[in-house]
Amino acid sequence: MDYLDKKDLSEVKLLDAANYPKKGNVANKVREDIDELIKELGITDGSSISFHHHLRNGDRVLMNVMSAVQRAGIKDITVVSSSIFPTHEGLVELMEDKTVTNIVASYISGPVGEAISHGKLSGNVIMQSHGGRARAILNEEVKIDFAFIGSPSSDNRGNISGVNGENSCGAMGYAIADAMKAKVVVSVTDSLMKYPNFPADITEDYVDYVLLVDSIGLKSGIVSGTTMITKDPVGLKIAKDTLDAMVATGLVKDGLSFQTGAGGISLAVADFLKEYMVKNEITGSFASGGITGYLVEMLEMGLFEALYDVQCFDLKAIESLQKNPNHLRMSGSQYGNPEVSNVVDNLDIVILGATEIDTNFNVNVTTGSHGMLMGGSGGHQDTAFGSKVSIIVSKLFSSRIPFIKDRVDVITTPGNTVDILVTERGISVNPLRTDLIEKFKEAKVDIIDIHDLKKYAEDIMGTPKKIEKTGKIVGLSQSRDGSILDYIYEVK
Amino acid sequence: MDYLDKKDLSEVKLLDAANYPKKGNVANKVREDIDELIKELGITDGSSISFHHHLRNGDRVLMNVMSAVQRAGIKDITVVSSSIFPTHEGLVELMEDKTVTNIVASYISGPVGEAISHGKLSGNVIMQSHGGRARAILNEEVKIDFAFIGSPSSDNRGNISGVNGENSCGAMGYAIADAMKAKVVVSVTDSLMKYPNFPADITEDYVDYVLLVDSIGLKSGIVSGTTMITKDPVGLKIAKDTLDAMVATGLVKDGLSFQTGAGGISLAVADFLKEYMVKNEITGSFASGGITGYLVEMLEMGLFEALYDVQCFDLKAIESLQKNPNHLRMSGSQYGNPEVSNVVDNLDIVILGATEIDTNFNVNVTTGSHGMLMGGSGGHQDTAFGSKVSIIVSKLFSSRIPFIKDRVDVITTPGNTVDILVTERGISVNPLRTDLIEKFKEAKVDIIDIHDLKKYAEDIMGTPKKIEKTGKIVGLSQSRDGSILDYIYEVK
Repeated sequence: MDYLDKKDLSEVKLLDAANYPKKGNVANKVREDIDELIKELGITDGSSISFHHHLRNGDRVLMNVMSAVQRAGIKDITVVSSSIFPTHEGLVELMEDKTVTNIVASYISGPVGEAISHGKLSGNVIMQSHGGRARAILNEEVKIDFAFIGSPSSDNRGNISGVNGENSCGAMGYAIADAMKAKVVVSVTDSLMKYPNFPADITEDYVDYVLLVDSIGLKSGIVSGTTMITKDPVGLKIAKDTLDAMVATGLVKDGLSFQTGAGGISLAVADFLKEYMVKNEITGSFASGGITGYLVEMLEMGLFEALYDVQCFDLKAIESLQKNPNHLRMSGSQYGNPEVSNVVDNLDIVILGATEIDTNFNVNVTTGSHGMLMGGSGGHQDTAFGSKVSIIVSKLFSSRIPFIKDRVDVITTPGNTVDILVTERGISVNPLRTDLIEKFKEAKVDIIDIHDLKKYAEDIMGTPKKIEKTGKIVGLSQSRDGSILDYIYEVK
Repeated sequence: MDYLDKKDLSEVKLLDAANYPKKGNVANKVREDIDELIKELGITDGSSISFHHHLRNGDRVLMNVMSAVQRAGIKDITVVSSSIFPTHEGLVELMEDKTVTNIVASYISGPVGEAISHGKLSGNVIMQSHGGRARAILNEEVKIDFAFIGSPSSDNRGNISGVNGENSCGAMGYAIADAMKAKVVVSVTDSLMKYPNFPADITEDYVDYVLLVDSIGLKSGIVSGTTMITKDPVGLKIAKDTLDAMVATGLVKDGLSFQTGAGGISLAVADFLKEYMVKNEITGSFASGGITGYLVEMLEMGLFEALYDVQCFDLKAIESLQKNPNHLRMSGSQYGNPEVSNVVDNLDIVILGATEIDTNFNVNVTTGSHGMLMGGSGGHQDTAFGSKVSIIVSKLFSSRIPFIKDRVDVITTPGNTVDILVTERGISVNPLRTDLIEKFKEAKVDIIDIHDLKKYAEDIMGTPKKIEKTGKIVGLSQSRDGSILDYIYEVK
């Protein structure tokens, strides 16, 4: 502020009374025609446009907006979407006609991933973790020109709530960084509420326009009615052994903080943990991440004091977020941005899945069979790094491709942050964690060298064929701190 | 992001596995010795240090920190405090020895204001509105090096809650911009809570250090047990006439949004409004601002759907914020930052006080008798600008100085945003508001020209003596949008 350094304030010019700002000129933010809005915004070739994925496979916002961009003849867009699902198949056509040339995402499944793997994106794909995405947006490594925020409800001033409206999705943590940093922020909604709309996940001070559309999504694709524990006996054995491993770490005690995904085995772990905590009268501190009804139940039973919710996986989580003051919203940055203090750094134990793991404990959740892009880190990298103990749970034989390799196809999560692997044929501990190996000995929990596990699998399934690639690099697997962990190759 | 423009991604260097970020190195943020912390932070001469005023006249944080800065021999500090109270008298000594050379604030009362008016600050004072402060911090017009945030409660990671802890103050809206933009953020607390501390006004991702102190303040100075309606019959007459004026505007109907201060007459207006809304079965939209028990009562009676709370004025407001989900927190920016969409722009009616008003309806709440600095805009400028109708309530004869002048001593709020003046001798309407003059005619509410009101007062009290000033300018009254409305002069 220049005024502070002025020796003689009489040099400062006073505003003439005739030029005082006049009251009563509040601009109307509401728009109803998406094509008109695209024109009004002045989106140019080469712009970046961001979306969030809280509406998941029910989302109709991304394609609605990008189709309008295509109709306007705008080219060379970078799509910055926290995730991309099969419902976004229409993007493939936009890649082919060069409406979209770059994609930045934390997870890509379905036809868009396949098209990228087949070299249909003329630019590049950058795969980030959830925390890495927030970091890159907030520190402006990724610049967003226009953020279109799918809003289950919004008022005319742009107060956005994820728990109100027909297509409620609950927490909206991944959209916060976009709202804070995009040059222009558009709330896209099918439920215009009376002012003030609350509780607001994003408040009006971050929103420039409110675009009314017929539908932001299909409720059926947004949340599953319930998330389900595995009934498969092999999966249940893995979950039971995982609980033993958790107990062996010494962390399952009062104050435990815990995260688990929504996969069948991971949920079974939560269920076994619940029993154990009840039986042993343990009260945990918090559970975090994408939240399911199972964690809500544990909160309501008093097994955790709070939930930190970045996205809701099912209806029960949304209901809980709406009514339970101990069910807390968090932004993607608060969740896992490595450049700030974040929730994952306070985690004791995280339970994670994997598509592949290698003998250095590197995990791939980015590409699948044949090296096809069909996933991404999401919070995998973030929680593996932040937690005191990260545990990968997986069957050795869940698909026709081998699970343990010498080197994963793509490094999503570096092996030095992955501590334990639990399979139906035994538990491996990362040799870097001599402390855990000692604890497992004390607790009389058997462990097996990961090389032996690999050999066991190969004896049964044979050595894997090498994935056939063209040698052309189509994208990068980025570390949450910004450095590049691996290439993603074009597939033949 | 450079990676997006790369034609050949093989040029991108992969991170070597040996350099993968290692888990488990979370730094301890907690400090217990303020002098050691000042050294560790490396505060240098010329730094800017910010504070919030939610602990009001009970605050012990500002002097605790600034005394340590003085002990460290650091000079030429710019103090950016949302307000300064009599309890901060110790700053005068720090002005004299040039520890502090500039002050930026929204309100200054007590010895510090007097010392500034007597020229004891070797630099300048900049007086901003609450919304203008948030604007200036967020757009980096005012750069904050170190924010010391008085925290009624904090956990070891810096999750700050204003409703927990012995010295709870409720909402902490004025500290949000500081937390977001300061280079270093210190949570100063006397109540270290278990992680996670919630509901958090400021989350850990914005906090770098947690400083434990014996006491952040004196509860008695932080909030009054109850805020009180005036019992003075003159004040009550003004309040009653104000309600008539409000009704005449046509805005007192379903959906009404309303703000009023905590002064005795303003609260009486709220009380009359309550009766009127009950009798006429009117349901308002929201009330906003600093929140008192009177507004809480109206919320609980269903007369408003929500409260937007930037600071709590009494215990009842704090209790309500803690338990009522319709009692919403807002940041200073969301409240009144003119560079974003904000709550005051949605206000129908605001009731405000004034130290002086002039015949152009300019209001002074910055200086008092003899031109001494003893106040400031707070939200005055913001709400006068944002509201459809702003109403000044005041007695004509409340002190020995005249209330209506040809030109106020310092313009705090420009006259073109001030619409109605209600005094015990009549109601004046700003001639710019021909629409309101018409409505008052229709409603048969008498109005009087402000020049006639002035003459009436002068006939009784005589013409005011001119305030004696030295001609030296010690500070500036800044408009919420950044331009300068007026000078603040040294007083003889």
